[in-house]
Amino acid sequence: MNPIDQLTQLFERFPGIGPRQARRFVQFLLVERAGYRNELAEHIRLLASQTSQCGRCYRWFAKDSRSAGADKKCSICSSTSRDAGILFIVEKDADIESVERSGFKGLYFVLGGTIPLAADEPEKHIRLIELLARLESDASSPYGGRTSVSLTEVILGLSATTEGDHTRQILQEKIFPIAAGLSFKLSSLGRGLSTGSELEYADPDTIASALSSRN
Amino acid sequence: MNPIDQLTQLFERFPGIGPRQARRFVQFLLVERAGYRNELAEHIRLLASQTSQCGRCYRWFAKDSRSAGADKKCSICSSTSRDAGILFIVEKDADIESVERSGFKGLYFVLGGTIPLAADEPEKHIRLIELLARLESDASSPYGGRTSVSLTEVILGLSATTEGDHTRQILQEKIFPIAAGLSFKLSSLGRGLSTGSELEYADPDTIASALSSRN
Amino acid sequence: MNPIDQLTQLFERFPGIGPRQARRFVQFLLVERAGYRNELAEHIRLLASQTSQCGRCYRWFAKDSRSAGADKKCSICSSTSRDAGILFIVEKDADIESVERSGFKGLYFVLGGTIPLAADEPEKHIRLIELLARLESDASSPYGGRTSVSLTEVILGLSATTEGDHTRQILQEKIFPIAAGLSFKLSSLGRGLSTGSELEYADPDTIASALSSRN
Amino acid sequence: MNPIDQLTQLFERFPGIGPRQARRFVQFLLVERAGYRNELAEHIRLLASQTSQCGRCYRWFAKDSRSAGADKKCSICSSTSRDAGILFIVEKDADIESVERSGFKGLYFVLGGTIPLAADEPEKHIRLIELLARLESDASSPYGGRTSVSLTEVILGLSATTEGDHTRQILQEKIFPIAAGLSFKLSSLGRGLSTGSELEYADPDTIASALSSRN
Repeated sequence: MNPIDQLTQLFERFPGIGPRQARRFVQFLLVERAGYRNELAEHIRLLASQTSQCGRCYRWFAKDSRSAGADKKCSICSSTSRDAGILFIVEKDADIESVERSGFKGLYFVLGGTIPLAADEPEKHIRLIELLARLESDASSPYGGRTSVSLTEVILGLSATTEGDHTRQILQEKIFPIAAGLSFKLSSLGRGLSTGSELEYADPDTIASALSSRN
Repeated sequence: MNPIDQLTQLFERFPGIGPRQARRFVQFLLVERAGYRNELAEHIRLLASQTSQCGRCYRWFAKDSRSAGADKKCSICSSTSRDAGILFIVEKDADIESVERSGFKGLYFVLGGTIPLAADEPEKHIRLIELLARLESDASSPYGGRTSVSLTEVILGLSATTEGDHTRQILQEKIFPIAAGLSFKLSSLGRGLSTGSELEYADPDTIASALSSRN
Repeated sequence: MNPIDQLTQLFERFPGIGPRQARRFVQFLLVERAGYRNELAEHIRLLASQTSQCGRCYRWFAKDSRSAGADKKCSICSSTSRDAGILFIVEKDADIESVERSGFKGLYFVLGGTIPLAADEPEKHIRLIELLARLESDASSPYGGRTSVSLTEVILGLSATTEGDHTRQILQEKIFPIAAGLSFKLSSLGRGLSTGSELEYADPDTIASALSSRN
Repeated sequence: MNPIDQLTQLFERFPGIGPRQARRFVQFLLVERAGYRNELAEHIRLLASQTSQCGRCYRWFAKDSRSAGADKKCSICSSTSRDAGILFIVEKDADIESVERSGFKGLYFVLGGTIPLAADEPEKHIRLIELLARLESDASSPYGGRTSVSLTEVILGLSATTEGDHTRQILQEKIFPIAAGLSFKLSSLGRGLSTGSELEYADPDTIASALSSRN
């Protein structure tokens, strides 16, 4: 296969990119100046060495180039100004950016996905074992952990989709037994009318949730 | 103007219908059998005489053909099994159907619209005067009113849109002074993730609401 | 069933209208003034008496209210300034308006639909028998027909869709034998790039047609 | 700026990619295995050395790795089985793939874009000078050129868009004077109904073109 087709196939694996757009990417790169192409290739190649996956929340972050390369924790997990008593569990890295914009000041844990409806082994789809270990560690040993603040609440921040709901239910089943023993609260994001939605087109579940969370 | 163009223009006033679809409606009617056309015309013509606007909630309902034509109240307002202590304020008739599907069992009041952002006189756009009169009547005179149950809560069920929010604010300003004196609670529908929405694409306000209504 | 639901069901039969929009139509009519409703009902009821289907091209047209009610032909078919030598065959009335805007000055014949791919009897789906009769009449007896101009060309103006192509093929099979004997030409609309389309996204057939009709 | 943001910005320059999708690309790459990332980077970096721009038609093509690196012409331009008498002028490389699927067997010339409506100097937006030089060379010196076949037709294969039409007009103005002297024909792709389009929704220009190219 020729290099144009090979690069096209590599781009086809990008999320949301089909054969036609993959080919447009290659055409775009062919016409672009070499400087841009080299810069892009270099950044892709160095991505692994310039980034780290946080050992606590599992999100990816840029390493501090001045540090000795030993970044184990991301800026949020290592910040002393965040409320370490509240842990917000999200599906993926991009969710954290959305939650940050809402003003949340606690910590995060990235599941790395959701659990498909038909999945037999949830721990193959999300970081379930890592999550349970973290909850035990954070909740039971406030002084042995990274912080002197003990975990008081775990918020399940799954999407309001079928698979998100399914994942939330499995997480609740797994976490509830621990939560009682370790005395932290387990909560889920409130449902209701999201900004821009009209009552006429809202589904019964959303209206029922909006009614029960009326204020 | 010829009758085909005249009927096209009448259909163009239907909500969401442009000139092209209006013309398709006329073509459809031309080809349909006379029986259907006559039935449609008859139902449109008799709509006023066969329906009533409820004197309490202002929604439109089908008159009971067996009654003496004196229907003043719709089936919900005249039902004895509804909780007359809770009043759900909606923008339009269609909202009631959505709320009914959620299992709500109180009463309704139809505003008849929302208040545009630049409007000077809110009462020209919604049934503000009628609403305030109803609240005073229901809340102050439980025995003088249609029911022995006094009003305990008014829920503002506006859409989560800019104009819906604006209308809600004006209603709050108008109702709060009365609410205190008449001792009913004034609440609004909870905001949050509506069914189907993903955290990554949720706006900061929706996430903040979902966080504060977490449960 | 109550009159609101009945009218909703009648509107659901309109082309492209689902249950939700049908209900919005009824809500719209309930709030509209009686004058508009009565006018609409009257126009729908009188549609049959105020319009005629042209006896030659089969399109619907508004009757001239001054005439004695004996309009048998539409304005195009009865015009003396049209070229009666060219007959443009269309699927439906609305196509005529589009073709008129292109400046065509011949006559029309409305098939009343297309022939489904699996149909056994084409004449049950389109006015095939009426069309063949008209072609024989127009082509063979220029002096016995309505005009002294003999038919010289028949243009098949089907849509460039699968069902349109299928209908065109069947019409060609039926008309070709007659065309030879009666000496008129049978043609089809040219294919090519339609306004707004880009070469990159054009299908091979369209490009091949555009190439063969290059000028 | 950190490497994640830097790579996001580089992806934002890809055609049709906004900040959100650019970030998803980076997230995708972070989670992908290093092997894929390195392969992608390597292919992007080597794109220039593994591809050539054809010296005759200006499209990009993969170099033959076995050749001495002296590929000056693409496979189409160097083929002896193509009809060198017909030159198809296209806007961009991707157009060639579409035209090839239609069975065209002549040669191509890639303009490299279209001329914006307000542009003063057309030659800054497309390869106008290169095109005119090629036409003179191909048409005047059949034996001095790369082929013994003299140019007999030039097809303007612009898109049927406003800017495509504008570019076609300017090319016609520039080529017509040469064409007469050099005795090749200048043609444009035929307009008409493109596959899938319906007569009812076709614009007057398209119908007029379909009528004049009827067959």
